[in-house]
Amino acid sequence: MAALRNVLFIMVDQLRWDHVGAYGGSPVPTPHIDALARRGALLRHAFVQGPVCGPSRMSYYTGRYVASHGARWNRVPLSAAQWTLGDYLRPLGLRATLAGKSHVLPDTAALDRAGIEIESERGALLREGGFSPIERFDGHSPPDARSGYADFLRAAGYAGSDPWNDYVVAVQAEDGSVRSGWSMRNAHLPARVRAEHSETAYLTDRAVDFITASAGESWCLHLSYVKPHWPYVAPAPYHAMFRGAPQRPTVKAAHERHDAHPVVRAFQQHEESRNFADDAIAAHVKPTYMGLVAQLDAALGRVFAALQDSGQARDTLVVFCADHGDMLGDHWLGEKELFYEAAVRVPLIVADPRAAADATRGQVLAPLAEAIDVLPTILDSLGVDLAQHSHRLEGRSLLPLLHGRDVPWRDAVFSEADYAFRAARWTLGRAPGECRGTMVRTARWKYVDWEGFRPQLFDLQNDPDELVDLGADPPPAVAQEMRARLLQWSLAHKNRTTTGDAEVEERTEAVKRHGIQIGVW
Amino acid sequence: MAALRNVLFIMVDQLRWDHVGAYGGSPVPTPHIDALARRGALLRHAFVQGPVCGPSRMSYYTGRYVASHGARWNRVPLSAAQWTLGDYLRPLGLRATLAGKSHVLPDTAALDRAGIEIESERGALLREGGFSPIERFDGHSPPDARSGYADFLRAAGYAGSDPWNDYVVAVQAEDGSVRSGWSMRNAHLPARVRAEHSETAYLTDRAVDFITASAGESWCLHLSYVKPHWPYVAPAPYHAMFRGAPQRPTVKAAHERHDAHPVVRAFQQHEESRNFADDAIAAHVKPTYMGLVAQLDAALGRVFAALQDSGQARDTLVVFCADHGDMLGDHWLGEKELFYEAAVRVPLIVADPRAAADATRGQVLAPLAEAIDVLPTILDSLGVDLAQHSHRLEGRSLLPLLHGRDVPWRDAVFSEADYAFRAARWTLGRAPGECRGTMVRTARWKYVDWEGFRPQLFDLQNDPDELVDLGADPPPAVAQEMRARLLQWSLAHKNRTTTGDAEVEERTEAVKRHGIQIGVW
Repeated sequence: MAALRNVLFIMVDQLRWDHVGAYGGSPVPTPHIDALARRGALLRHAFVQGPVCGPSRMSYYTGRYVASHGARWNRVPLSAAQWTLGDYLRPLGLRATLAGKSHVLPDTAALDRAGIEIESERGALLREGGFSPIERFDGHSPPDARSGYADFLRAAGYAGSDPWNDYVVAVQAEDGSVRSGWSMRNAHLPARVRAEHSETAYLTDRAVDFITASAGESWCLHLSYVKPHWPYVAPAPYHAMFRGAPQRPTVKAAHERHDAHPVVRAFQQHEESRNFADDAIAAHVKPTYMGLVAQLDAALGRVFAALQDSGQARDTLVVFCADHGDMLGDHWLGEKELFYEAAVRVPLIVADPRAAADATRGQVLAPLAEAIDVLPTILDSLGVDLAQHSHRLEGRSLLPLLHGRDVPWRDAVFSEADYAFRAARWTLGRAPGECRGTMVRTARWKYVDWEGFRPQLFDLQNDPDELVDLGADPPPAVAQEMRARLLQWSLAHKNRTTTGDAEVEERTEAVKRHGIQIGVW
Repeated sequence: MAALRNVLFIMVDQLRWDHVGAYGGSPVPTPHIDALARRGALLRHAFVQGPVCGPSRMSYYTGRYVASHGARWNRVPLSAAQWTLGDYLRPLGLRATLAGKSHVLPDTAALDRAGIEIESERGALLREGGFSPIERFDGHSPPDARSGYADFLRAAGYAGSDPWNDYVVAVQAEDGSVRSGWSMRNAHLPARVRAEHSETAYLTDRAVDFITASAGESWCLHLSYVKPHWPYVAPAPYHAMFRGAPQRPTVKAAHERHDAHPVVRAFQQHEESRNFADDAIAAHVKPTYMGLVAQLDAALGRVFAALQDSGQARDTLVVFCADHGDMLGDHWLGEKELFYEAAVRVPLIVADPRAAADATRGQVLAPLAEAIDVLPTILDSLGVDLAQHSHRLEGRSLLPLLHGRDVPWRDAVFSEADYAFRAARWTLGRAPGECRGTMVRTARWKYVDWEGFRPQLFDLQNDPDELVDLGADPPPAVAQEMRARLLQWSLAHKNRTTTGDAEVEERTEAVKRHGIQIGVW
């Protein structure tokens, strides 16, 4: 089968899987994403390796679990020893072009330690985590930051040193006064930026320009949207589009406030959780979140049209995913970071235009997918021999599934959290190195090991809403099985990253060939 | 307490703990090592993190478990992201001076990948794993290699392109003919090199010169002997010193050949095991091994005398250890690599000349020590604040134990193996990434998880010789406890190496200080 020429790797920040139409039951229509699902296949059970931006993205970009890449939370530098998408593409003569958010913080300290200057082109790549940005925008920027988006805003008439702060995340009240979009009480008000100048529109413009200009070339674009991530601010008309419309009901039970797992209880005390626990606040914010999703979907329509109109759709693999979800008040929690489905389960759609993928085109696939599968899937579509990277890549290509091949597949997924940087750590009296949670989830069970505390356990078959935590007294056989899975997984991390499997094969029992006659009589 | 000025970090290659007099029952006297034990404290239960040279040494040099540093076998490059002894010493203005073997293979591929030239002084350090060699000699060298030892040999009259091969590991038969020292049948014959020109003597000369010349300065010397490691060749008079003398009996039982664990059985088929399984061969080789130990002890006498004579003994921490042991036929095995005490347990003596250590001077200490404790012990003696490295160092300083302080201590040690590079892998039909063993050992139990096979379990209280493997049908409570220990250990590896704990503390809940008002109503 011929390799594909292009890859469009779309990531959305903080998009819940159940707010995508193709997953069923979404309170917001997403016709363009749904159309992509019809052109490809939808992974019904897809999970991120960490339910927070930084670790999740580093897993997407390295194809490795968080324990393996070590960037355990936001802005923990990614070790320079880790290979990312760009490193894998370079031998193909391809760049990992970036438009939007990567959240990569490079490990420049390691280079400084070695007294190494990185002035070279590839050194610069290292600083960007292997990406070649046409636009890097991580979703917020300090005042006076030199960013393409700030310049764009100023050129469009949004004057000032920090137009993002003053217009994009600021809102205008009915009386004309300007208010902060950071305050969720203002979520119903329109952003001071026009929709066509919003972050979503801006990144879409960059992507459309790139796709159109690149026709005839081979490329890989990571289009990485910063919305519907906080602040919950939408430009008109999206800010008002779903006000009064049916919302997805908040999933929570009264008893969860009283008998919660200690770590969950600590998170419930965070400000975002205390606010989202108020039904009126959650109901006030959700329409804005829905509006941002609708805006995103419309933007994607433009991207897909550019792909089609430039004649590249049949040569392009399209991946659509999110870095994590959003609790939106479920289980008395805001934001993300814990292992509830609202946070750790994400939409994942892969559209392979080749005939081989007709076998599953338009289908919903049940196998368990992980975020680390995306990198191998991309490489596989471009014809890279994954076997040569088997000592580093911990995910696996989804293409055999898409091509309807009967391949052995995993029966559990894993995800990791680390609340060292959160107030929950102080609440629980933990040191920074003692705040880890590790999830294993099978089709039926979700088990979370929490360092220093009892586990969490949910029976997803009988309790799909995860309202009853069985972790205080888990069925022994289940606990034993889940812990055995965790142990097997943890001991198997691919840490021999400096020597490939083929080299191991070549070197097996080779010392005697080099004159070292050990054990000869 | 004032920091010490110097560190002498002595490592011996392949020295069994039970061949050191101070441990009791040694078949070879080691008066100088025993004297060191009287000047310091002896760790009765010390274990390496991997029972083979490369991984074990990288754990000594990084203070991290094998799973954390990733150099799982010999000549697997150590990632440039790993901090080694030299990195920790540099802020003190100290170098990690090396005389002898380090076995470090630097990860130059990572630097090449980034297009980085390492011409700088610190770049060169990276190539040597952080060491500043006055003599690097890994124990064997290809013909025409430029090594200080080869030059020394030639200057001493051993002519030729490869004097190491022709004289040091070659032996002379009674009839004057030259034979290979690689063949164990020749172990009773003297090496063609004179004792004063042997590897042990040469490295000792370098160390004595360095110590003597460095009086008045602050220094850290890693004196790393390559013997009694193979080939089993000793110069006169050591080759004959123990021939006919009592040997330590080989520990094995007939049933071990028939009901062995699959991985053990595969190792028993290696050539070195098949030969050592022959009692006559083991009995033929052991006196040479003992002679090499005696030669080593004599050499250490010269080193300790230089320390004393130059007036530096009272300012110098001395650490004596080994990278692993030698099966010598125990359990029908040669060499090392598995988790029997003969391979994974090592001698470890730490002599702190300060008054605080009088509390344990000359004592045998029972607490479980790991090889990864040596680096923090060295740093602690030099006054380094270990807390600032708590996100990387997985071992702990032994000094509180030596100083008689009642500190909480571990009750289990861990070690890792990977037989991917050995014929055992072919015998067992495994892929290179599927060959891991992980040991947890408490005071009583030793449990080994083997990827894809049943575990091993030994009751060291009732079966100190490890002749009865209970792993096929382990007591459920014991298996459960040991697996819980493995899981807790494995999930706690320090992989957030790019951000220190103090920085985590400073950044906890700090985003709002940077204007990111998440979750505010």
